[in-house]
Amino acid sequence: MAQAPIGTSEFDRDTAVRLRERDGARSVFDADVSPGWTVFDTANGGYLLALIGRALGDALPHPDPFSVTAHYLSATRPGPAVVRTELVRSGRSLSTGQASLVQRAEDGTEIERIRVLATYGDLDSVTDDVRTTAKPPAMPPYERCPGNRGRPAAAGTPAISDRLDIRLDPATAGWAVGAPSGRGEMRAWFGLADGRPADALSLLLAVDALPPTAFEMGLAGWVPTVELTAHVRRRPAPGPVRVSITTRNLAGGYLEEDAEVWDSEDRLVAQSRQLALVPRGA
Amino acid sequence: MAQAPIGTSEFDRDTAVRLRERDGARSVFDADVSPGWTVFDTANGGYLLALIGRALGDALPHPDPFSVTAHYLSATRPGPAVVRTELVRSGRSLSTGQASLVQRAEDGTEIERIRVLATYGDLDSVTDDVRTTAKPPAMPPYERCPGNRGRPAAAGTPAISDRLDIRLDPATAGWAVGAPSGRGEMRAWFGLADGRPADALSLLLAVDALPPTAFEMGLAGWVPTVELTAHVRRRPAPGPVRVSITTRNLAGGYLEEDAEVWDSEDRLVAQSRQLALVPRGA
Repeated sequence: MAQAPIGTSEFDRDTAVRLRERDGARSVFDADVSPGWTVFDTANGGYLLALIGRALGDALPHPDPFSVTAHYLSATRPGPAVVRTELVRSGRSLSTGQASLVQRAEDGTEIERIRVLATYGDLDSVTDDVRTTAKPPAMPPYERCPGNRGRPAAAGTPAISDRLDIRLDPATAGWAVGAPSGRGEMRAWFGLADGRPADALSLLLAVDALPPTAFEMGLAGWVPTVELTAHVRRRPAPGPVRVSITTRNLAGGYLEEDAEVWDSEDRLVAQSRQLALVPRGA
Repeated sequence: MAQAPIGTSEFDRDTAVRLRERDGARSVFDADVSPGWTVFDTANGGYLLALIGRALGDALPHPDPFSVTAHYLSATRPGPAVVRTELVRSGRSLSTGQASLVQRAEDGTEIERIRVLATYGDLDSVTDDVRTTAKPPAMPPYERCPGNRGRPAAAGTPAISDRLDIRLDPATAGWAVGAPSGRGEMRAWFGLADGRPADALSLLLAVDALPPTAFEMGLAGWVPTVELTAHVRRRPAPGPVRVSITTRNLAGGYLEEDAEVWDSEDRLVAQSRQLALVPRGA
């Protein structure tokens, strides 16, 4: 498949931010939230994390997200948005920043959608030591996992599906045919539909782009994220990545989704955890 | 053992904050960082999270921390501190706030120590549904785990040790006698030395109060936290809690510590993950 290069791919265009002004530690960026990355008219949380992550990468002295936390305050709609950033601390190897994505309501009122706190570094500077006991997810090879590519879009398919190359592990795809496994697990090969290679920014999308684990637990409906924290641990090697998401504690109306992203060299490149609301219909 | 009640215990006194002023969504609190919760003159990150968490509980319309993220910017010293909070969003069941703990350098310059982003709710309002596959940590009963209570303080013992009742699982205590297991695991029964019961605030301490997993991996030295996110999932039942911490990926000079806290009713009451620097001496 032809590869859209990093920089001019659909993902890069749709997460672009334009610096409007910079005043000391504070910057203001304009952005356009694309309708292409939505589920039911709400922009995907991982896509927005990547968009805000791009603004922070511009505003901070270090290029790569090491730890990014987002609190989702209200649903982000396609259309204009403003990202305000603040440089909180600038250190030698790490810098910390904060960001806020806002949109305007029809009456002109400003509504904050997402508040982010993040520490950035340089993934080129991380050392080569590896003492990892975590194992890559056990799942069939890419070719043996059913994909969404090349099929005509079904009614009700979210817009974001067209932009992703997600190939679900058949063991966690039962929900799609009315036979969920009952386990809080979701695994998939993950890539961008236009073949753009993975990088630190697209990993922020990858951790929140699979169907919710709640579907495999037999629950249906919207699973709103309260908070998501992602750690990028390494620049991904070329090729599709594997994403494994696990829910071990659904209780009190909330559940956590723990995601791991593994690259083609069997290295853990990102981890994330989100706290989400159990679907109302459950 | 006599129990110090919630409200007047050592932990409550030392995490107290005094509201100085409130202006709309912004509040300013004064606090005194106690020398009693330090390791080598640096205040413990969990203790500070509880102190800031108390300020946010006062500043936000909901009482309990559901998700709290702290980025540790510089080492906090015993002495006066100021906590500034901002109410970011106020919703029906959840509210989001931000906080910053600052101290003054000797020349009067203000130095930010910690930046926090948090969502609060009311733990009394969470539903009773439980569909949890996570299991409590396998470890010996409280009585069979060696404790630090009643022993004379050894030279070099951190001040915080006197305020905690930590009983390490012998299987993860090898580091203390020069025989680390090599596994990134640390488990302990956790309580406060004066018998104060656990609550949501003390869970913020519990997730960052055990010895670092790095010690059991044979590494020595300081393990500075870059970022820590804690989720409080339920009010803990009476009695000591069990804390289990796991490191599955040490790579590139960073490691994660995943903590779980379980109460006496075998319920998962808190989860946390922190990103930390691998000790330099490693």
